[in-house]
Amino acid sequence: MHLNVLTQCCPAPTFEFMWAAPEDRTASGYRNLRYWTDLAGKLERACVDALFFADVHGVYDVYRDSWEPAFQHAVQVPAIDPLTVLPAAAAVTDHLGFAVTYSTAYHPPYQCARLFSSLDHVTDGRIAWNIVTSYLSSAAKNGLGEHLAHDSRYDRADEYVEVARALWERSWEDGAVVRDRSARTFTDPAKVRQIDHKGEFFTVRGPHLCEPSPQRTPVLYQAGASSRGLAFAAKHAEVVFMTLTGPARGGAQVAELRQAVRESGRDPASVKVLQGMLVMVGQTEEQARAKARLYASLADREALLTKWCGWTGIDVDGYPDDTRLDEIPHHAVRSALSFVQRASGSGVATVGDAREFIGRLPPPTRTTALFGTAEQVADRMEEWLERTGIDGFNLLPCPPGSGVDDVCDLLIPELQRRGLFRTSYDPAEKTLRERYFGAGNAAPRH
Amino acid sequence: MHLNVLTQCCPAPTFEFMWAAPEDRTASGYRNLRYWTDLAGKLERACVDALFFADVHGVYDVYRDSWEPAFQHAVQVPAIDPLTVLPAAAAVTDHLGFAVTYSTAYHPPYQCARLFSSLDHVTDGRIAWNIVTSYLSSAAKNGLGEHLAHDSRYDRADEYVEVARALWERSWEDGAVVRDRSARTFTDPAKVRQIDHKGEFFTVRGPHLCEPSPQRTPVLYQAGASSRGLAFAAKHAEVVFMTLTGPARGGAQVAELRQAVRESGRDPASVKVLQGMLVMVGQTEEQARAKARLYASLADREALLTKWCGWTGIDVDGYPDDTRLDEIPHHAVRSALSFVQRASGSGVATVGDAREFIGRLPPPTRTTALFGTAEQVADRMEEWLERTGIDGFNLLPCPPGSGVDDVCDLLIPELQRRGLFRTSYDPAEKTLRERYFGAGNAAPRH
Repeated sequence: MHLNVLTQCCPAPTFEFMWAAPEDRTASGYRNLRYWTDLAGKLERACVDALFFADVHGVYDVYRDSWEPAFQHAVQVPAIDPLTVLPAAAAVTDHLGFAVTYSTAYHPPYQCARLFSSLDHVTDGRIAWNIVTSYLSSAAKNGLGEHLAHDSRYDRADEYVEVARALWERSWEDGAVVRDRSARTFTDPAKVRQIDHKGEFFTVRGPHLCEPSPQRTPVLYQAGASSRGLAFAAKHAEVVFMTLTGPARGGAQVAELRQAVRESGRDPASVKVLQGMLVMVGQTEEQARAKARLYASLADREALLTKWCGWTGIDVDGYPDDTRLDEIPHHAVRSALSFVQRASGSGVATVGDAREFIGRLPPPTRTTALFGTAEQVADRMEEWLERTGIDGFNLLPCPPGSGVDDVCDLLIPELQRRGLFRTSYDPAEKTLRERYFGAGNAAPRH
Repeated sequence: MHLNVLTQCCPAPTFEFMWAAPEDRTASGYRNLRYWTDLAGKLERACVDALFFADVHGVYDVYRDSWEPAFQHAVQVPAIDPLTVLPAAAAVTDHLGFAVTYSTAYHPPYQCARLFSSLDHVTDGRIAWNIVTSYLSSAAKNGLGEHLAHDSRYDRADEYVEVARALWERSWEDGAVVRDRSARTFTDPAKVRQIDHKGEFFTVRGPHLCEPSPQRTPVLYQAGASSRGLAFAAKHAEVVFMTLTGPARGGAQVAELRQAVRESGRDPASVKVLQGMLVMVGQTEEQARAKARLYASLADREALLTKWCGWTGIDVDGYPDDTRLDEIPHHAVRSALSFVQRASGSGVATVGDAREFIGRLPPPTRTTALFGTAEQVADRMEEWLERTGIDGFNLLPCPPGSGVDDVCDLLIPELQRRGLFRTSYDPAEKTLRERYFGAGNAAPRH
């Protein structure tokens, strides 16, 4: 089983309203290196696969056509750049992987390629790239990228990945760096080549600015849930994040992804699937329930609507209540509508339903989350693994700070007792890719 | 006196041909975090002001119209991104500052502002931004920025700095982050505002994505040597790097800068001037001379021409020998011609002169560099300080790896014995800006 922990460099990753949880250390710690080196050390002692950094490049300003609710409730703002903490976390660990969310919308692919080669060098091959195409139109208001339509974003991302991989995999041959003092040759130019990419979106000559790193190409993560996102994942991704609706229906969704991978000419086993889930663990059931009560007491209607409206691009205050969600032109992920459709018990969800059901998020339960004692959660994880064919979990600890302690101190020891999770890192797996695909597979298979 | 050490994340910063020096640890260490944390620790023990990262975003491909010589001689390639090592170096130090070269040509100002706020947070206010406008046309071949004419680059940079400073200094009031659990308010939106910048080059609405960092605005470094660069420095810079030709003429150049600062409405004392110099120190004169002989034996004609041609944009192989350099249309810094003019002993340097004098760089001497024993170098530094009115030095240690040891172990103790350099950091100066301008001046004066 593979286990990642999701975070973000903001006061309360994923569960924004939890910044107000008493004594949660993330709310002020998010901008201190000590917080991040402590976190990385803890995850490495627990043998976690990777710490996964989410990120944003704009503010949530769709709800009420205003950024004010996002600032009030700390909905992913303030947010510092994860790159400014990752190297410090890497310096105090030897095995923990790091996945970085990096958008194809805001940085030229030549720079992206250099950044990830650099990260892969300094971490000795422990880097993954979570490829996102970005959805916040507020970024465009700040001079970042163009805000393309959803499918065009993926076309552009396809070409972007192609350019980056050419720089990583084709520009420098193995052995190009010779460091031959007598011949006064550091790099043999005959073993380096331009990539001469001329495409619809990008023109990049090369060569790449970095010598080959341990993995050459970072492990490619992707989380797109739309059909175009699925096609993209099938083509490129090595690790896919899914948000399956449950162990019962999840198996079919995983099978659909693996089929798409097969149809794009790749081995279905060359993609690992991680299910993203809230995890809230207590030493006792009562302790878990107390955490859920805290969650319910802090879950804030305005904060929840701010985030959902930013995701979908739909301002629930801007339309009559009976407007059908699926008839509103918007840029963002349609999958964000599904929760409302399910909650409303109808395939035809309206703006009124969204305001109703998004604004009063229920606290986590054993059905909707990894919730309860370590034993109960481990049971549930076993069920997920057996029924769906997923390869592991992308954990969203709640509360964001102390929830990590619960994962490392309560849940993982229970998984280890059951033989479901490693008790040490395999020294033969020197890179993050080898941890997923076995020793000897440091660079991607072509 | 202020002392910085210049580096770059490449095999041999500044003195590229020195990668071939026996046992120099930089040539392979440049991509290991341990190399950078060791370096930072050493500089902090020596009470150095800041480690200054140079950077490039393209390859030197002007000479012979080819990038091959740059690869062979490791002329700033391979080069990893300094941001991927800086946070690790920050995590092992408490006082050392870090200056980051970041180009106004390749990143939108909104992202630049976020990056430097993030760095300033995680270092507790130890960050400087070395503002460059970039000169390598090869970057454009890789889809990075537009390659504007020299003066237009500075017009764009003026507006860029204006946007970034508005985000840093005007978007979040002091006290905007209230973390008021009872009022469910993390940030008071009434204390945050948009910047609504609409200019010739940029449109940025804001607000800024980060809460105010210790310095709010990184210390602004600048090194432009042209008249347009001087005007830019006079307007924005807090620390200016100069390459004065000698202690005799240097005083007039420093006075000219300070006069320009005064004319742009600022206090001339609000700019610190650091002279950039090669430093090569031996325990004895003979040991220093041995280092100079090594330098002379490694100084490579092709490497030197590759770098100079990349700087100036002039391919010395592409013109007849008698072509006057000042009649060649080019994008790059005219100041790069001055060395050739001086070396040729004539105001009218030609392509032939460039090939002649750039390709056979003489080894450092006590006239051209900080060269000799620690005592000799300290004498020379005293002379520089007294005669020119500079505030310190930007040291270019040679060889790049062991040269840092010589600076820390030989030169700085001698400067400390003479009372010319601090023996500990002043605890009242909590940020890098306060180290330059005194306790209490963490944020820039308006």
